[in-house]
Amino acid sequence: MAEWTKKDLIGLEYLSREEIEHILTVTDSFKEVNKRAVKKVPVLRGKTVVSLFYEPSTRTLASFELAARRLSCDVMSLPMKTSSVTKGETLVDTGRNIEAMNVDIIIVRHSMSGAPYVLSQALNASVVNAGDGWHEHPTQALLDMYTIKKKLGKIEGLKVCIIGDIAHSRVARSNIWGLTKLGAKVTLCAPKMLLPMGVEKFGVNATSNLDEAIKDADAINVLRMQFERDSTTAFPEKRKYIQDYSITSEVLAKAKKDIVVMHPGPINRGIEMSSEVADGENSVILEQVTNGVAVRMAVLYLVSNGKEKL
Amino acid sequence: MAEWTKKDLIGLEYLSREEIEHILTVTDSFKEVNKRAVKKVPVLRGKTVVSLFYEPSTRTLASFELAARRLSCDVMSLPMKTSSVTKGETLVDTGRNIEAMNVDIIIVRHSMSGAPYVLSQALNASVVNAGDGWHEHPTQALLDMYTIKKKLGKIEGLKVCIIGDIAHSRVARSNIWGLTKLGAKVTLCAPKMLLPMGVEKFGVNATSNLDEAIKDADAINVLRMQFERDSTTAFPEKRKYIQDYSITSEVLAKAKKDIVVMHPGPINRGIEMSSEVADGENSVILEQVTNGVAVRMAVLYLVSNGKEKL
Amino acid sequence: MAEWTKKDLIGLEYLSREEIEHILTVTDSFKEVNKRAVKKVPVLRGKTVVSLFYEPSTRTLASFELAARRLSCDVMSLPMKTSSVTKGETLVDTGRNIEAMNVDIIIVRHSMSGAPYVLSQALNASVVNAGDGWHEHPTQALLDMYTIKKKLGKIEGLKVCIIGDIAHSRVARSNIWGLTKLGAKVTLCAPKMLLPMGVEKFGVNATSNLDEAIKDADAINVLRMQFERDSTTAFPEKRKYIQDYSITSEVLAKAKKDIVVMHPGPINRGIEMSSEVADGENSVILEQVTNGVAVRMAVLYLVSNGKEKL
Repeated sequence: MAEWTKKDLIGLEYLSREEIEHILTVTDSFKEVNKRAVKKVPVLRGKTVVSLFYEPSTRTLASFELAARRLSCDVMSLPMKTSSVTKGETLVDTGRNIEAMNVDIIIVRHSMSGAPYVLSQALNASVVNAGDGWHEHPTQALLDMYTIKKKLGKIEGLKVCIIGDIAHSRVARSNIWGLTKLGAKVTLCAPKMLLPMGVEKFGVNATSNLDEAIKDADAINVLRMQFERDSTTAFPEKRKYIQDYSITSEVLAKAKKDIVVMHPGPINRGIEMSSEVADGENSVILEQVTNGVAVRMAVLYLVSNGKEKL
Repeated sequence: MAEWTKKDLIGLEYLSREEIEHILTVTDSFKEVNKRAVKKVPVLRGKTVVSLFYEPSTRTLASFELAARRLSCDVMSLPMKTSSVTKGETLVDTGRNIEAMNVDIIIVRHSMSGAPYVLSQALNASVVNAGDGWHEHPTQALLDMYTIKKKLGKIEGLKVCIIGDIAHSRVARSNIWGLTKLGAKVTLCAPKMLLPMGVEKFGVNATSNLDEAIKDADAINVLRMQFERDSTTAFPEKRKYIQDYSITSEVLAKAKKDIVVMHPGPINRGIEMSSEVADGENSVILEQVTNGVAVRMAVLYLVSNGKEKL
Repeated sequence: MAEWTKKDLIGLEYLSREEIEHILTVTDSFKEVNKRAVKKVPVLRGKTVVSLFYEPSTRTLASFELAARRLSCDVMSLPMKTSSVTKGETLVDTGRNIEAMNVDIIIVRHSMSGAPYVLSQALNASVVNAGDGWHEHPTQALLDMYTIKKKLGKIEGLKVCIIGDIAHSRVARSNIWGLTKLGAKVTLCAPKMLLPMGVEKFGVNATSNLDEAIKDADAINVLRMQFERDSTTAFPEKRKYIQDYSITSEVLAKAKKDIVVMHPGPINRGIEMSSEVADGENSVILEQVTNGVAVRMAVLYLVSNGKEKL
């Protein structure tokens, strides 16, 4: 790639194949940093990173903050739920105020799809989307793809299957954008009511039959089922879901021997996945977490040098 | 000025004109640091700063913490609302315990007027007041004055008008102390019930007539109206307040062409100020935020070298 | 001592006398760091420390975090009460995820006795117990012992008396393990219902008579009485407790002239101890806090170099 130009990471929908591949390449060098005794490089020393999380999160926040610290940034976390900033102030006003403190990068998680985009347009500071509504969670998809690539050597031509609540998943959406751009064949697998309508326009296959989905799959990405969350949405019966879609050793027995099993975490053991599978040989779930820090270091590093808005 | 001697910043009431001007001068050099690619100076490396906020705050806390980090301090934030420290322990005991951890500077916000003073007398560590009850918010007034000075070249002789809920505003009180010491002519403007009694003793003018207040004003500082907060206090009717005191383009049309418009934030757009004004040519609201970090760097730097109590 | 080998600090029950003494010796050198103008040493630069507090805490958390920062670690605090990590995820899964981010040391506080042990067995990262249920709070006991040693020159042969709610106190348990290993004669003093059964097996004396306990004592450690907490447990009447066990000047008058008075904090002034005693000549309560940071620096430093599990 010539050079990275974008100041923000809003979603994989807005990146070219070349840009996605560039992030994955840069990730390699940062992954190495995380293995050193001194896990710290001075590349962003004196830069300020603020995380602005309107939805609670521990893992994603921790991963981003460790990434920023290992790049030697000054890091500040503003939990927005209980914050006084929210009192009647718009997201853009909040963002402009933070930017006015000479902040370089704002990492934002918001329940509203499009919030990071709105912010990125209003600010000169870089904006990184850490999850917005059901829209995108680009760094999660990047770390998923990076993990597949490290494990299987490539992404092009692989069959990757995403299983679970696709309809309400920003992780699924970002993976669909990223994987199809990199030439993977994507299959979505879920009960009908959890499959978004019109998926064919994304260039993916969809099925409600797990055996069919998993057959010949090189990798599966098993989404978290949040039965506790949705009382208003149509949702399958829990016991039925487990019976038809839970990934167990029996299910894996019908798959390729070296199938890569992923999960964005936290796992509901015994629901979308059995403990045996989660902790088994095919599982790369903890490697995903490890790779997440390196991917986020790459993203922070790249956007901090970018100038262009979408 | 010969040399800075005070270990604390409790309020502008307790500083001389010379001391206030010294802070504003030192601010200049730190403002420059905030524009660098590497926004970090090693002047307070190895010093420990703890923020002790008994009232929630995001902006002021963020501004202080970024200031401390850019001075290379070790920074720790102790949110005191939900904290176990509060269980039956007095403020002074909490302060002594923090000090015992070899902490150099404690930044305190408290709903009780005088709390930072009490702490400063009990401790050898420096205490910086980040807002105490309706008493003072000295760093806010310092950044307001710094902003005026940068914009208009001086403060002496200017007419500065503070508009809104003066009676319950620590921002107003600190501005009154600071501006009068620096030779500005201060006018307070609010409905009668929001003007404190006996304001004449502060050497300021007071009026309930906005046109009169704003006439010939060089700068206005528009306070946040918190209609949601006060159910017990006498408070004007919201619609009437907006009609009589909201700063709109029509109001500004009657003022000096280059009048400086300030607001301590967060703005209630459409209440104390219209969006057109908040985002307009005369507004220096985001510059205030930018200057706030530099002012706080100056304050932390100065008190860390001071030894004397009030 | 030959060399420190353990990767974790779970409790003083699991350390040899030699190991405990080694920690106290290493503490000496870190105590000196805390007195410098630049309170920072680069010994753990580039190491990552995460605090995982399932119970709220301000003092212990602050002490650990300052310790880690002064060792130049990257520090991240994950408050677990409101955290999304807890949603259905096991402690071990949470720990494995944090470890997967290449975290070196996890500091854990948990209401469940044994939680840090379970975590330490599952992880290669170091685990430091910051208090688990009624089990142990090893760094508190280490700082108590360090304080006695600094004050009285030794621990062996001293009579140390622990007064208060022994039955529900992890501080008491860790002190009992540590002090007896170092050769002190330990006396527990509390109303019968607050004395654990079978204390004689720990090699300590127990009495409900304060005069008897305090007679000839070289040091007393007065525990916090949490009358507000326990509605379900048998608990003495507050007024009666104060009358019989509160440490006042009158009580101290019957003790050795240079008796060392300790309290783990925060103090309920007027309940387990009078203000006169808390702030009096014999009190080393603030020195305990100061020593706490140095002890924790020593612990973090040592475990980061250890490899062995219990």
